[in-house]
Amino acid sequence: MLISPAAPADAVPPVLLGLAIILIAAKLVGELAERLGQPAVLGELLAGVLLGPSLLAVVDPGAPWLHLFAEIGVVILLFQIGLETDLQRMMRVGGAAFVVAVVGVAVPFALGYAVCRAMGLPDLESVVAGAALTATSVGITARVLSDLGRLQDPESQVVLGAAVIDDVIGLIILAVVARAVGGGAVSAGAIAVTTAAAFGFVIAAVLVGRLVVPPVFGLLARIGRPESLAPMGLAVGLLVAVLAHAAGSALIIGAFAAGLAFQPTAHAATIERGVTRLGHVFVPVFFVAVGAAVDVHTLGNSRVLAIGGLLILVAVVGKVVAGFAPFWFPGRKLVIGVGMIPRGEVGLIFAQTGLAAGVLDAGLFASVTAMVMVTTFLAPPLLKLLLGARPSSSRNAGGSAELVTEA
Amino acid sequence: MLISPAAPADAVPPVLLGLAIILIAAKLVGELAERLGQPAVLGELLAGVLLGPSLLAVVDPGAPWLHLFAEIGVVILLFQIGLETDLQRMMRVGGAAFVVAVVGVAVPFALGYAVCRAMGLPDLESVVAGAALTATSVGITARVLSDLGRLQDPESQVVLGAAVIDDVIGLIILAVVARAVGGGAVSAGAIAVTTAAAFGFVIAAVLVGRLVVPPVFGLLARIGRPESLAPMGLAVGLLVAVLAHAAGSALIIGAFAAGLAFQPTAHAATIERGVTRLGHVFVPVFFVAVGAAVDVHTLGNSRVLAIGGLLILVAVVGKVVAGFAPFWFPGRKLVIGVGMIPRGEVGLIFAQTGLAAGVLDAGLFASVTAMVMVTTFLAPPLLKLLLGARPSSSRNAGGSAELVTEA
Repeated sequence: MLISPAAPADAVPPVLLGLAIILIAAKLVGELAERLGQPAVLGELLAGVLLGPSLLAVVDPGAPWLHLFAEIGVVILLFQIGLETDLQRMMRVGGAAFVVAVVGVAVPFALGYAVCRAMGLPDLESVVAGAALTATSVGITARVLSDLGRLQDPESQVVLGAAVIDDVIGLIILAVVARAVGGGAVSAGAIAVTTAAAFGFVIAAVLVGRLVVPPVFGLLARIGRPESLAPMGLAVGLLVAVLAHAAGSALIIGAFAAGLAFQPTAHAATIERGVTRLGHVFVPVFFVAVGAAVDVHTLGNSRVLAIGGLLILVAVVGKVVAGFAPFWFPGRKLVIGVGMIPRGEVGLIFAQTGLAAGVLDAGLFASVTAMVMVTTFLAPPLLKLLLGARPSSSRNAGGSAELVTEA
Repeated sequence: MLISPAAPADAVPPVLLGLAIILIAAKLVGELAERLGQPAVLGELLAGVLLGPSLLAVVDPGAPWLHLFAEIGVVILLFQIGLETDLQRMMRVGGAAFVVAVVGVAVPFALGYAVCRAMGLPDLESVVAGAALTATSVGITARVLSDLGRLQDPESQVVLGAAVIDDVIGLIILAVVARAVGGGAVSAGAIAVTTAAAFGFVIAAVLVGRLVVPPVFGLLARIGRPESLAPMGLAVGLLVAVLAHAAGSALIIGAFAAGLAFQPTAHAATIERGVTRLGHVFVPVFFVAVGAAVDVHTLGNSRVLAIGGLLILVAVVGKVVAGFAPFWFPGRKLVIGVGMIPRGEVGLIFAQTGLAAGVLDAGLFASVTAMVMVTTFLAPPLLKLLLGARPSSSRNAGGSAELVTEA
């Protein structure tokens, strides 16, 4: 009504209603999940399943506005993850984290692919399902370790470092897979090109960003109002995301690279605080939209259950094996492996990409989504069992949890 | 690509690009305006004019996503204004503010209508143009007075009280006008019904809200994470906005009422901080979209310039007269009148409503928008001239400006 005579007069109220329902459901079920000792993201996924067409039918996962908001949510999420990722610290954790990451990507991918092929699925479908098994959720892992007061343990440092590295590898695989499911050639050459494009884009964006961002945002901070920094930072994140897309990589790779470029600057904390507030609204929309795309009826299908069960087994075994890979590391290797179990946003993005491109059918999509949800669900109680809840003496547990959530 | 196979694969990157450009332009020109002693909103409007189809043609004001984001922006803005509006304090400023508000609505409306009719414009068009002259911008006025260190002067108290009251009256007139331009009857009975609906909705929402909100949000604050409060508050604001729309009133009336309902609660400040961060992204989109809808070529039209000039004259005279209306008030009445001059968001919403409904043509729309921009532009230097810049001793000027901007 306001801006465009072309837009239907009643288009806005239903969107506002849908957004309000999604936010309320996501926050309520998210809080409930936390009360039950589970990460909030699990609650948001369940809220989506609940609101989706196969149960309450309140949210239509095909609505264009929901698609747009969810994409903005995932771009903001990866920008945030980039803002949190301390490259120097990641380098220091070094060898062990790198080995855990590489083995933790390779083994689940190979096992997942093999399982799917053994179940008679075609090649591309099996690649997508395998790829969805690769990336550990940094956010969930960090949150769980923080809740247990174990963030500063050496095992936790390895887990966090590896989770960040396998996220980057996962994003690169995603770019390759997105190209493949988009009909691009899957030859070794094409994979190499896409990998080089993704790596090259991240490296170039970080290098250029670390040269350009500090003077520009230093100037902005001197001449402008402090509340302008976060929207400007977000705008730059969006621009770099679009650049990455234009360069043949993925929006989220650009957003992550932009976050990395901002991370060491004096204004990263200010930008992150502002972007996090936006994330509190947009990111749950992504998880609810993912949950809403799950057709619960497919879970009654024995083949879906069989594949889902095998994928869960492979997801757990693959990461536990990875935990034992740095054989020289003196700490408790089982803790590392279990800490790597939760899959999250990147796994779901794989599933969505595959579903949207028609490579995954509703059944395999449900299996993969179930794998993400179950691994997310498994890790907190297992880690609690292994480590025991130890209220950290050096910092307030609630405070640090809040910190990681905010971060 | 992610959520819906139905959505075109390339729809998201252009939206992210457009959003990034709008944010960067709005913040840069906004900061520039502030450097020149003008309110940031003026810069955002100018950024819109610059990006719009008649100059750089970067932003298409007819794009559905822009329409949606702008509407969300104005809903958030009115929710924020409601959150800032202290009903009790407004009551205390009392008589003088009320008289200034009523006279300041009636005189500009009557003069604006008369001018348009005299220029040969039809009845409904003249009503919309007159209505756009009524509401003072609370945000701009508060910001200017704060920048001058005069927020606590008695004249400023009257100006702020009157600006809030005439905003409410303006919103009710908007509901009436929206009904009229929507093809509804403009009989006295229909106006009475719409006024009663708007008043009734605000009163009911505030009463119910003030009963329901404190226990519900008290419970949420006890059981939940603090960062969930702002999204939940926003969700409730969106729901009440949709309710107001469904009840035959306007989205923004509902959003304002929801803000009023939250205002006295313990969590208003937390909700406002979170919502303000969202506002930093969405609200500039609204002002840029409004600016982009201005066709600068119409400003070369002598009739548009004549009507625009007359509207500006009437807008200034009407509010200055209103400043002298509370004859018993001992303060400087010219300061009150000049403080009431800047029109803002509500005036622009009138213009947009009229344009979208086809009641205003591009020429009259440009005249009204020019009136809003010029009055916004005039007030800061005039007030500075009348009052002199006095760096407040009790509070840091930058700090209080930031406070009002944040508030």
